[in-house]
Amino acid sequence: MPRRIKLTIEYDGTDFKGWQVQSGERAGESGDDAVRTVQGAVEWGLRRVTGQPIRIAGASRTDAGVHALGQVASFLLPDEILIPTDELCMALNSNMDKDVAAVSAEEVGLDFHAQRDSTGKIYAYAMYTRRERPAVIRRNHWHVRFKLDVELMRIGARALIGEHDFTSFASRLALTQSIREEEGKDALKTVREIRRIEFSEDAEMPGRLVMRIEGSGFLYQMVRTIAGTLVDVGRGFRTPEWVGEALEANDRRAAGPTAPPHGLCLERVLY
Amino acid sequence: MPRRIKLTIEYDGTDFKGWQVQSGERAGESGDDAVRTVQGAVEWGLRRVTGQPIRIAGASRTDAGVHALGQVASFLLPDEILIPTDELCMALNSNMDKDVAAVSAEEVGLDFHAQRDSTGKIYAYAMYTRRERPAVIRRNHWHVRFKLDVELMRIGARALIGEHDFTSFASRLALTQSIREEEGKDALKTVREIRRIEFSEDAEMPGRLVMRIEGSGFLYQMVRTIAGTLVDVGRGFRTPEWVGEALEANDRRAAGPTAPPHGLCLERVLY
Repeated sequence: MPRRIKLTIEYDGTDFKGWQVQSGERAGESGDDAVRTVQGAVEWGLRRVTGQPIRIAGASRTDAGVHALGQVASFLLPDEILIPTDELCMALNSNMDKDVAAVSAEEVGLDFHAQRDSTGKIYAYAMYTRRERPAVIRRNHWHVRFKLDVELMRIGARALIGEHDFTSFASRLALTQSIREEEGKDALKTVREIRRIEFSEDAEMPGRLVMRIEGSGFLYQMVRTIAGTLVDVGRGFRTPEWVGEALEANDRRAAGPTAPPHGLCLERVLY
Repeated sequence: MPRRIKLTIEYDGTDFKGWQVQSGERAGESGDDAVRTVQGAVEWGLRRVTGQPIRIAGASRTDAGVHALGQVASFLLPDEILIPTDELCMALNSNMDKDVAAVSAEEVGLDFHAQRDSTGKIYAYAMYTRRERPAVIRRNHWHVRFKLDVELMRIGARALIGEHDFTSFASRLALTQSIREEEGKDALKTVREIRRIEFSEDAEMPGRLVMRIEGSGFLYQMVRTIAGTLVDVGRGFRTPEWVGEALEANDRRAAGPTAPPHGLCLERVLY
């Protein structure tokens, strides 16, 4: 019997050109000459482990520079592949570079699909506020040179909770080019539900601030635009009330800047 | 008037061959061909900012792969250098690679010396326990494949608190080669005071464990040997009582293994 596998994957996005393999590239083909993508790296690992080209489907097409602690991918292991499911991660981890790791593998129903069956996602956006640039945490924190009033950011974030049309917070490019759209078949639907936005400061590292956001799904660059918009509020450049006004405008130009990709991390995909 | 500067420095040790410039290398000489050291990188930056070769003294000669959030270096800025002290960090940060950053600079008394005047140091040793290797935090966490009983580690650590001869926890190489000894002039004295050892687990990242240790000073590889020894206790390979026995043996072979450098971070130097 073939097995459908749900694979949880972690990666440091710094040296990847995003999740998705380039168009035309076949499964397991990513060699040294290819554009380096996470999907390509995992498919390459699977080819080394199984000897077969296996195409995987990711829950989220994360952008270049974006990290993940809990990306999920699904794929079909053909009948003749005998490796036990609980040995798949160790085998894969011996066949992938150090900046990507398989965390867990489980056998699921044959009709499971990582993206289509997802009921929500949790992203973290990490920033670091200090005049001088950071070194140790530079790869996964946005360096914000302004002092931020977190209480104002919390107030501003409230306007985004619930089901809304998030056109103002999506890349305009994405709305016309459905191929860049995270949700695939729902490409031109711009209504999403945000369930919570929380900010946590770090007692052990003053200046470090993490925004954690859970939603039914996110438009292309939506989390980064929310982060950039709320930082505009936190630094006092905009009022908290402006966030709701930006949302209602249904116009990307009404919201704040898009925060850089390297602060973003896909923490968990919900099913 | 010349100015004595106390500079706080942060670095990601992954791509450095440690703190100390190689013997024979003069200040500000570190170019592309040199062995890449943190001291060399900062002296190179200072040369670019001031136009002069300036030798700096670091509080701790951290090893290859070891990180720092609060390393301290002292140096003398000659009379003719006009850059204001509070602009020094920004200028340096424009002239150093991204994995090293100047965090703060202050003018201190002319007789201040970063290493000699230090009254203590705080190090953090970070580990991550999970079967599968981590990717995002791989550069600054020791991957421990065992489940650790943190309560046993806390009990074991108690034997180390206070003033003791830490011969059992110092690299044997260091005890014969005083040049590798962190404390310089106190090279062959092996008595140190440990003020506290604390373990903190991470609610947001289960499996992540940080040991924080404060002491008057540390012998070469002492923090890493303490970490390796307490992990032997946490995994159940040794009893908590064994830590005190290892200390009393005054023999490096009595203690546990030396934990790898990349989990270690110099958090703060006390004055």
